[in-house]
Amino acid sequence: MQDFELDERLKRDSVAVATLGLCQIRLMRDGRWPWLLAVPQRAGVTEMFELAPLDQTMLTFEINEVARALSIATGAEKINVAAIGNIVRQLHVHIIARSEGDPNWPGPVWGFGTAEPMSDAEIAALARRIAEALSEK
Amino acid sequence: MQDFELDERLKRDSVAVATLGLCQIRLMRDGRWPWLLAVPQRAGVTEMFELAPLDQTMLTFEINEVARALSIATGAEKINVAAIGNIVRQLHVHIIARSEGDPNWPGPVWGFGTAEPMSDAEIAALARRIAEALSEK
Repeated sequence: MQDFELDERLKRDSVAVATLGLCQIRLMRDGRWPWLLAVPQRAGVTEMFELAPLDQTMLTFEINEVARALSIATGAEKINVAAIGNIVRQLHVHIIARSEGDPNWPGPVWGFGTAEPMSDAEIAALARRIAEALSEK
Repeated sequence: MQDFELDERLKRDSVAVATLGLCQIRLMRDGRWPWLLAVPQRAGVTEMFELAPLDQTMLTFEINEVARALSIATGAEKINVAAIGNIVRQLHVHIIARSEGDPNWPGPVWGFGTAEPMSDAEIAALARRIAEALSEK
């Protein structure tokens, strides 16, 4: 069995926030939106339906926990959840906090403009708020 | 308890293909991509994490069945799955067949251009292929 190894582009564009039972939770380095990735730690999987049934259930549970935590941590109006992967094929699920008036609202975040850099302090502060919301069940 | 009623815009923009245990499966009237919606028949729900735990599991199961069927029916390179809902707040999950060279590949389908009309015959033919793929487990 092949070992899971995080895709190089996901590694470059995001930082680890938490590790759950199945997924690494990562924060995208983009100051425009609070934007997380849930990456199931399974090698060679591209589509959600390729995961084993138990992993599919775990993924749903973890996505929904993270989405709820992100909603609480940010007070966002709407959470966007998506598995797209047209470019990076390693299965990864986007979980993004959206609010009226944010860049490209109500359009999607993908393929829109370029990432806005965040300082290490900004990343650490947001990561901490999310980790705290995740631990408050 | 409030009765489920399909949002007027979803009703106008799509046609029913199948009814599963939780979701209505609908085909978008847009000839640019084979594009389905899974709409959980639960009133007043906007976010996936607001569904009851059993419904969350059902939704995952149904999304993945439909995504696999769409992949088989179309031979698409990648299936895109997303719950966005910034405009229509009734919870609905997009399941879209994408292939290299399709309109806006590898970008997202949402917020891109305008729908390309389909004839009733085209809609019926695609709906039938998808329903057949869904029934072949």
